[in-house]
Amino acid sequence: MTQTGTPVHAVGWSPAGGLQLLDQRALPEREVLLTPRTIEEVADAIRTLAVRGAPAIGVAAAIGLASSLPRATPAEVESAAALLRGTRPTAVNLGWALDRMLAVARAAADAGDAGGDALGEAMRAEAEAIRAEDEAMCRAIGAHGQPWMEPGIGVLTHCNAGALATAGIGTALAPLYVAHARGVTPHVFACETRPLLQGARLTAWELRRAGIPVTVITDGMAGSVLASGAVALVIVGADRIAANGDVANKVGTYGLAVLAKHHGVPFVVAAPWSTVDLATPDGASIEIEMRAREELTVLGGRQVVPAGAEVHNPAFDVTPHTLITAMITDRGVLRPPFPFVVTSALVPPPV
Amino acid sequence: MTQTGTPVHAVGWSPAGGLQLLDQRALPEREVLLTPRTIEEVADAIRTLAVRGAPAIGVAAAIGLASSLPRATPAEVESAAALLRGTRPTAVNLGWALDRMLAVARAAADAGDAGGDALGEAMRAEAEAIRAEDEAMCRAIGAHGQPWMEPGIGVLTHCNAGALATAGIGTALAPLYVAHARGVTPHVFACETRPLLQGARLTAWELRRAGIPVTVITDGMAGSVLASGAVALVIVGADRIAANGDVANKVGTYGLAVLAKHHGVPFVVAAPWSTVDLATPDGASIEIEMRAREELTVLGGRQVVPAGAEVHNPAFDVTPHTLITAMITDRGVLRPPFPFVVTSALVPPPV
Repeated sequence: MTQTGTPVHAVGWSPAGGLQLLDQRALPEREVLLTPRTIEEVADAIRTLAVRGAPAIGVAAAIGLASSLPRATPAEVESAAALLRGTRPTAVNLGWALDRMLAVARAAADAGDAGGDALGEAMRAEAEAIRAEDEAMCRAIGAHGQPWMEPGIGVLTHCNAGALATAGIGTALAPLYVAHARGVTPHVFACETRPLLQGARLTAWELRRAGIPVTVITDGMAGSVLASGAVALVIVGADRIAANGDVANKVGTYGLAVLAKHHGVPFVVAAPWSTVDLATPDGASIEIEMRAREELTVLGGRQVVPAGAEVHNPAFDVTPHTLITAMITDRGVLRPPFPFVVTSALVPPPV
Repeated sequence: MTQTGTPVHAVGWSPAGGLQLLDQRALPEREVLLTPRTIEEVADAIRTLAVRGAPAIGVAAAIGLASSLPRATPAEVESAAALLRGTRPTAVNLGWALDRMLAVARAAADAGDAGGDALGEAMRAEAEAIRAEDEAMCRAIGAHGQPWMEPGIGVLTHCNAGALATAGIGTALAPLYVAHARGVTPHVFACETRPLLQGARLTAWELRRAGIPVTVITDGMAGSVLASGAVALVIVGADRIAANGDVANKVGTYGLAVLAKHHGVPFVVAAPWSTVDLATPDGASIEIEMRAREELTVLGGRQVVPAGAEVHNPAFDVTPHTLITAMITDRGVLRPPFPFVVTSALVPPPV
């Protein structure tokens, strides 16, 4: 592993002005940079999880769309966007980023523009805006998380809500990177996060690469690690936050919230304000994606669950707002009682 | 899988009067019966985990010792017992079973017996006594657990404290088998139990073989399954029970106990009375075995944890007695306040 002392860049522009991705399928064994050129190559990279994490997927789609169609017509942009939209149907940021790109193409079409250099330039500018906003969002979350970052603090996290999931320094891991940069280095405990092991494979890799010490544990060890007193903060990301403050995140998050409460340790959610879905009243209204049986039953080509056994494989669980100490967003830190009371906002939230 | 409707026999006598083991390394993919004949073959089967679970290891050692030395001298028994004792140094029941077998050989030596048929017969009788006592212990735990077994009850368990770990119908799974036999079939949720997956590989296999429905979940899913209301009982085994009632068991048990309490679900420990170690005052006095880094870092031959990351891999954790609703032992059901108050004993506990 190259240890650089700084967070990795998961997605951005290549030196030639195209899309550049760090291939997450090869981690932690190898660092492979991909530069998909055609829209089919971009779609393939997203579909096969070379890039993952909602913000990173959105940025990859935007840069991929802009860079693969440098002189496109509005109709070509529509068709390419439709192709990308179908790669990960449930990724909210993907649709949102594509809608922003389409708005540029449609504005050009409405103005009678047949495409070419001017539309290509406008699309590159919009893609860069999406990327830069994501990077700034991460930095803001990192800054707002500093009150928790005491020297040598033990921090437990789950799954990967880090630089590998965004175009910046991540969400849940952003406060750790900002603290490390100012010389306040935490010690991170990373739950391996079965079944797909994003904690072991990705979180441990990106933290080590940046020089932050990390200890990998199985998900079942979180209880005894908390009981040992080694952890003073649990911090996780969020896939969706309901209007009442309930949080959907990678399965296993809810158990950590219960354990944190039992041990009197703060349980903090770090996520962009855009994760708050005011149209979803509470956690019970969030539909949970059920994933394939094989994620649990096959390991390294070997059958580890007998054929007659059922498998339950939800991708996410819901943590009720009552277990959440605070939410760190790019707009400030939110504290109970939820729905949201903003205690230190950069920008007031929309009403 | 052969579905027999009855619990599997993990260890016992072969039709030819030797040791017979169900090879647990091949599960759940294949059912392979082993019949180790020489003491070296017996030692190898124990060392390489063809047989596992403290009670099953003790019984395998006793039958293996008796059957591999049908006309032994007391000195040959001493030497064979020393070989077996070194195979799993931390397995308490192994040493205990070997000590019982050695007592037989030493009594013969003290009586001036040079070995041969009479000593062989005495050793076979002692091995059978050890096996039969283990089987009876399991049956007693199964009977004492019936008050919890309501029709269709959802039961969550961890690791494997089943028939595969004993010479009988298991400890934590014994009440489920007894209930199933009288037509009260539970639905079991089995935590896969990282890193070694005993829940997925062994518990799910033996329950399905007996016709009990089972759903495998990752360890991190226990929280959301409990929150869903699908589970009305958490039942686990124990590796050691301290005098104050604190329980050491497979890592992950403690987190389940905290989750059970949070959801108001009974958390029950099922274990033989012999697991209670009155010489250990409390959980803090129990030394926890730390296991190899590779159990977490390598999966199916692939590196899943980056080289620079630390790994924490305790085999067990400690659940404080305050989180335990009851303990089902072969002598009766024990309830708080601990140290033990016996509420329905077959045999009064020693003072």
